[in-house]
Amino acid sequence: MPKVSFYYFQLKSLGESQRMLLAYGGQEFEDIRIEFEKFSEFKPETPFGQLPMLVIDGKKYAQSSAIARYLGRKYGLAGKDIEEDFEIDQVIDLLTDVRLSGLAVIHEKDEALRSKKFSELAETKFPFYLQKFDEILTKNNGFLALGRLTWADFVFVGVFDYLKMLLQMPDLEEKYPIFKKPIEAVVNIPKVKAFIDSAPKSEI
Amino acid sequence: MPKVSFYYFQLKSLGESQRMLLAYGGQEFEDIRIEFEKFSEFKPETPFGQLPMLVIDGKKYAQSSAIARYLGRKYGLAGKDIEEDFEIDQVIDLLTDVRLSGLAVIHEKDEALRSKKFSELAETKFPFYLQKFDEILTKNNGFLALGRLTWADFVFVGVFDYLKMLLQMPDLEEKYPIFKKPIEAVVNIPKVKAFIDSAPKSEI
Repeated sequence: MPKVSFYYFQLKSLGESQRMLLAYGGQEFEDIRIEFEKFSEFKPETPFGQLPMLVIDGKKYAQSSAIARYLGRKYGLAGKDIEEDFEIDQVIDLLTDVRLSGLAVIHEKDEALRSKKFSELAETKFPFYLQKFDEILTKNNGFLALGRLTWADFVFVGVFDYLKMLLQMPDLEEKYPIFKKPIEAVVNIPKVKAFIDSAPKSEI
Repeated sequence: MPKVSFYYFQLKSLGESQRMLLAYGGQEFEDIRIEFEKFSEFKPETPFGQLPMLVIDGKKYAQSSAIARYLGRKYGLAGKDIEEDFEIDQVIDLLTDVRLSGLAVIHEKDEALRSKKFSELAETKFPFYLQKFDEILTKNNGFLALGRLTWADFVFVGVFDYLKMLLQMPDLEEKYPIFKKPIEAVVNIPKVKAFIDSAPKSEI
């Protein structure tokens, strides 16, 4: 078995999907969580000055979505052809759009302006996107794509608590009950469950 | 031959790579350019309320990177296995990061603050990213990945003028001469050149 290390912060956010995918694939790995204060020191070790980073037998892999796609294909959680893979990629990019739309506001330093911008998004863009995900999950039997478990579900589940924070919707899965479906599907896979149970806990 | 339509604005930006890929693949397509003022009317026709959109025999494809990857794989411009595909995906995501880092500033309405934020990026993040692309292109014989032409080069070339605008670097390819390599490689492919010569011109 190759020697695998996965580097991210003590967060789920953009790193949990890859940890869960490695667990799903039965791949033992060093689950390394870099302290924020030590990241600038560690940065030169990464390909693009960013985390997450996956290292397999010394070869470095960067970029969250690219790593998740790679592991998803490796462990049989991708499409059977380019048409099917497209369905996954399309929803992954939409999920990134939702995340970035929330993130755009959080960096606004003026509190009144941030609050105003957030309210606008919360009335327009967020519900539009969330409704899309509701439709996508409904169409796909509670999965993100292809009507079956794929690596897209791992990405959705990994980023879910971070998304709830960004959108300021702690009850997101109560408002959209179908969002619970991919979560239940992923976290109850025995190997994934074993990983989650033993991993350090984090809010987002 | 399937009936193909490609919908985007009268811009290169996030749509030109797919147009060039369709041309490269010898695929005739309707090159539809929606006027900004008419987009809200057209929006419900799109899968996620966004352009670009590709339509093949009535089937709709959304999301810029996902469409480019799909066409790249379709026309033999992808990797030979998941390791190679990963190399492409990783650099595509890095290119998105560069674009978004520029975009984050442009929406700042306070001019003094926008100028301050931009200066910070122009001194830190932009040169860091551009240096990475310089290294990547040097390592790959003037291509974005795998030392040969892939769909990543089409994405880089398609978004290049938009990137120059975002980074406020009209002389970007003079500062980083190797950036000219993928551009020359892509725009001089006869089928791509024929498309570019006949297409409506746009600044970005």
